[in-house]
Amino acid sequence: MPTIAILGATGYTALELIKILLRHSCAEITALTSREETKPVDAVHPALTGHLALPLENLTPSQVASRAECVFSCLPHCASAQVIPELLRCGAKVIDFSADYRLHSAEVFKTWYGEEHPDPQRLGKVPYGLPELFRKEIAGQSLIANPGCYTTCAILPLAPLVRNGMIEPTDVIVDAKSGVSGGGRKPKLGFHYPECNESLSAYGVGTHRHTPEIELYTGAKIIFTPHLVPMDRGILTTTYSKPKSAVTQGDVLELLWETYRNEPFVRIVDHLPTTKDVSGTNNVHITARIVSGRILTISVLDNLIKGASGAAVQNFNLLYRHPETLGLV
Amino acid sequence: MPTIAILGATGYTALELIKILLRHSCAEITALTSREETKPVDAVHPALTGHLALPLENLTPSQVASRAECVFSCLPHCASAQVIPELLRCGAKVIDFSADYRLHSAEVFKTWYGEEHPDPQRLGKVPYGLPELFRKEIAGQSLIANPGCYTTCAILPLAPLVRNGMIEPTDVIVDAKSGVSGGGRKPKLGFHYPECNESLSAYGVGTHRHTPEIELYTGAKIIFTPHLVPMDRGILTTTYSKPKSAVTQGDVLELLWETYRNEPFVRIVDHLPTTKDVSGTNNVHITARIVSGRILTISVLDNLIKGASGAAVQNFNLLYRHPETLGLV
Amino acid sequence: MPTIAILGATGYTALELIKILLRHSCAEITALTSREETKPVDAVHPALTGHLALPLENLTPSQVASRAECVFSCLPHCASAQVIPELLRCGAKVIDFSADYRLHSAEVFKTWYGEEHPDPQRLGKVPYGLPELFRKEIAGQSLIANPGCYTTCAILPLAPLVRNGMIEPTDVIVDAKSGVSGGGRKPKLGFHYPECNESLSAYGVGTHRHTPEIELYTGAKIIFTPHLVPMDRGILTTTYSKPKSAVTQGDVLELLWETYRNEPFVRIVDHLPTTKDVSGTNNVHITARIVSGRILTISVLDNLIKGASGAAVQNFNLLYRHPETLGLV
Amino acid sequence: MPTIAILGATGYTALELIKILLRHSCAEITALTSREETKPVDAVHPALTGHLALPLENLTPSQVASRAECVFSCLPHCASAQVIPELLRCGAKVIDFSADYRLHSAEVFKTWYGEEHPDPQRLGKVPYGLPELFRKEIAGQSLIANPGCYTTCAILPLAPLVRNGMIEPTDVIVDAKSGVSGGGRKPKLGFHYPECNESLSAYGVGTHRHTPEIELYTGAKIIFTPHLVPMDRGILTTTYSKPKSAVTQGDVLELLWETYRNEPFVRIVDHLPTTKDVSGTNNVHITARIVSGRILTISVLDNLIKGASGAAVQNFNLLYRHPETLGLV
Repeated sequence: MPTIAILGATGYTALELIKILLRHSCAEITALTSREETKPVDAVHPALTGHLALPLENLTPSQVASRAECVFSCLPHCASAQVIPELLRCGAKVIDFSADYRLHSAEVFKTWYGEEHPDPQRLGKVPYGLPELFRKEIAGQSLIANPGCYTTCAILPLAPLVRNGMIEPTDVIVDAKSGVSGGGRKPKLGFHYPECNESLSAYGVGTHRHTPEIELYTGAKIIFTPHLVPMDRGILTTTYSKPKSAVTQGDVLELLWETYRNEPFVRIVDHLPTTKDVSGTNNVHITARIVSGRILTISVLDNLIKGASGAAVQNFNLLYRHPETLGLV
Repeated sequence: MPTIAILGATGYTALELIKILLRHSCAEITALTSREETKPVDAVHPALTGHLALPLENLTPSQVASRAECVFSCLPHCASAQVIPELLRCGAKVIDFSADYRLHSAEVFKTWYGEEHPDPQRLGKVPYGLPELFRKEIAGQSLIANPGCYTTCAILPLAPLVRNGMIEPTDVIVDAKSGVSGGGRKPKLGFHYPECNESLSAYGVGTHRHTPEIELYTGAKIIFTPHLVPMDRGILTTTYSKPKSAVTQGDVLELLWETYRNEPFVRIVDHLPTTKDVSGTNNVHITARIVSGRILTISVLDNLIKGASGAAVQNFNLLYRHPETLGLV
Repeated sequence: MPTIAILGATGYTALELIKILLRHSCAEITALTSREETKPVDAVHPALTGHLALPLENLTPSQVASRAECVFSCLPHCASAQVIPELLRCGAKVIDFSADYRLHSAEVFKTWYGEEHPDPQRLGKVPYGLPELFRKEIAGQSLIANPGCYTTCAILPLAPLVRNGMIEPTDVIVDAKSGVSGGGRKPKLGFHYPECNESLSAYGVGTHRHTPEIELYTGAKIIFTPHLVPMDRGILTTTYSKPKSAVTQGDVLELLWETYRNEPFVRIVDHLPTTKDVSGTNNVHITARIVSGRILTISVLDNLIKGASGAAVQNFNLLYRHPETLGLV
Repeated sequence: MPTIAILGATGYTALELIKILLRHSCAEITALTSREETKPVDAVHPALTGHLALPLENLTPSQVASRAECVFSCLPHCASAQVIPELLRCGAKVIDFSADYRLHSAEVFKTWYGEEHPDPQRLGKVPYGLPELFRKEIAGQSLIANPGCYTTCAILPLAPLVRNGMIEPTDVIVDAKSGVSGGGRKPKLGFHYPECNESLSAYGVGTHRHTPEIELYTGAKIIFTPHLVPMDRGILTTTYSKPKSAVTQGDVLELLWETYRNEPFVRIVDHLPTTKDVSGTNNVHITARIVSGRILTISVLDNLIKGASGAAVQNFNLLYRHPETLGLV
């Protein structure tokens, strides 16, 4: 059974990951790191009381690698790429939740993240951990770039439309709405309960860092507008694109259905899906509509599961040749 | 002081209207109607306990007109236009919250509302109660078509861009998000707390009845996608349109600012506004951005106030030549 | 593998039950009933899309018994006891979510539920499905009375204090707070989103039907005040009782810890637990405090899991001699 | 028209205070202070955009007193009492939102607040700004101790029961539930949206600082348990007390009704009130029940209005001999 370490175990994605791995029959958590906390993990995540008795520890990469075969890094961007090279040198497999290995260019990385990439020579060589589109590249690898939450919710409906030449790959509008857990666990005014409860806002208009990632993996030029919605979890993405030639709603749904017909976690539905339909699951529900000659897609997922920790376990299952759904249904 | 009747006084817009009128120094509520309830109004709206001692009554239009000079109709569409002609014959002034007199064509009405219009000959002759754009038409009238909540939030940012030829009037995307009170007070599964709490969904995609209203008063052809957001009140509307020629964010903001510079309830802001900024007020906050050559506007209002009852009192003030802001700040 | 039917499968407890059973390695759902719906189950519960392909059917008890060995009845009180006798005659095992077999007296039942009990001769002979206190009585039975949500949250902290003579069994105050899903899935004004969102209220003060159930299984006379909290799920119960002789917080925690030390789902904690700590789990977290000579207990659980469907699966596991935690961790 | 300064103007109570004063016909805000921000006030409170053009300033007490006749201090405890003596010396009237002058003993203050009182000689000489019970002491004063939010909600129902000898003044249980805005605007993990949303918890059990204040002004010894509820605003308080002799629900309601019959903001109601009934208002709704021989009271208020800023304006009106309800209805 693979032993597992989780780096940056105090946040929400780490908590969800731990919950999934505790139900997983072929995974054993053996180390949890934090740069700030050294308490037992259940003192930081009371939901784990009685379920996991590990402490949080401030460990070096080589200590981590000596304790675990597989490392899930929930560290922030740049922090992740600072430790991953040594983890790989020590023989660990790594699934990286950060954006560090998702883009292919250090220059693009710097433009959007504002920092020099700590490990630029690996860029472009790391598979993007979206099994529905890149399953073949994932198996057998030692490092996987786990996708962003918004990006999965946008790429899954859009990529087939672009790949099959159904839509113009320019001028695609991605109007996305996310629950607050996507903002992480660090207290900030914008995520203070009385600020964002009973309120709705757009943010990062034209500047959100998931933009180049969506563009890279869909092949479309997009306008991306994220909105903050007063709920814990869930992303709903509404996309608007122009068909190259006249299509019906049935054509679009059929293409999506064909693309994902064997996927265990993607459902093409006729009705308008809600984020609650997929809350707490690794599922993505997608539908499409034609309105005034435009193609609309509407897709939903749980940002902490399919948008982060569930996808990571899907990748873990692929790396270790477990059934892909193990621990996820 | 004008005496006032409210038809259909059991709902949320009626409650907000009553609250505003109780603070208004030149208005006296003298009759409240309901077709179903005959309780004291504070038995239906406990928030009014000790503030308003009127009963709900099932009154005929002539009885209403004998009790009040000005009638606010919070009845549903068609029900409203069935009683308004007689109210007008009896000499009452009427502010209609329903959609009945907003459109100019009985045919368009039937297409979107599925029913024959009860009073088609008045269509096209009733001023649309959006004072920021139609103030001159409102004063001195006896019937006002109070705008819809989504429509005000979309028309205010878009109309100046179309009128001034800044954007292509086709292919305008209006991605709107609303709190649940917009769905009314009648219990339905879709508005049952555990269904819509912690959930987000699109609805009425391509079919929402506010579409022709927005098109009529902006002059643009739109794609309108409303979403239901887990919060009581507030609408945020994100629009995407194509400039006719290159413009800057400053150009757009300047045009909006010029248009609304003397408006007491419209603020053009540089920052990204939140629905909470205007919650409980008659204000609209609007900003604009340029992203990849598209113009985005983001506008927020309180659907029960500026989107309904506050606008109605603004119209009432205009009809009675009160200061337009009376009772509203 | 036992085949399973769920009666009344359109509600929230049925949905949670289905989700748990789909993860359970020794259970196969073979029939779902509804008196009103005959759609595929995923049309009523879109979260099940792609996971369960059964229709809802209007089946007689004998039809149900011919399709399943074990029946979970999510029917309302009285409706449940009207079909259970025949299910038992046909040889099915039954786990009843309703209150029908929880009380021991048809008279008390009538006092609190206002109806004649449909099957009075079984009262007092059916084990109460709270394994932490009545595990021995459950195994080998054919009918289990699954406990109420409030009752489990009150009985677990109070029963050991009464049984061990630590508190006066009179004048115990149980101030309980619940999320809205406890009210069921049927739309009502009180559970309409804009009514209960951002609002808090007490209800059923002195009259709530869980009162006699808590009294029966704790042996204490209680004052029970439930409150409705704007959240989907979770119950937090604060109890106030008088110690028979001076005790410390440590004494109370120690007694609780001793009582539940081997229980897989009950945790005695030092900190003040939150409902979120146990949300989505079958866990109960309990703590205690001494304030001004009174013993306070604070306990939390998920009303749909440990308060309903999780407990039911715990009972199912006991009936079929599966490991008690199967499907629940 | 009295000129007004607000100290500590960045928080939620200051924002509510500003909103009320902007509607108040006899008050002019002339200075706003902050120790940290020097922006225009609408940069910190976007809801004020276009309504108030003052900057936040870091002013000394004498500067404040030179700019305003009346000062509302929204500073934290101890910070408030450090500047109030000089404000008074300079001739200002002061309404203090902090707890600094509410208790009568520097020793009790130190026990509960953990700090030496900065101005102990004034303790016991400052009227407690709860006009419903202490109206006579307030008029003509220069310093008022504005009550706490929990305390008003507990004192109003309990004080008449104790004063009239209806209940035993010992062993009174006060189980209180509050929205999150009561915790202030400073980001903390406990008030981070994904932590407290969809969650309920008790806190400060036996140690909350409002305990001695409730005891002082009711004359009862209490057990006080506050709970944090996932909503912006509102407090609901459930009290349990023992009648000295047998009473009916009617007796209790009658006593409360007699006590508050002329109060503009207190309503004794028969039904169970909700926090939403009083949200955004200066009202308190109170009811009572008898359960198993105990008296229960249930009271609701808006913690930011009647629990803070509304009460402060009520006190301001009394100080300046305005109608007490000015700006508040």
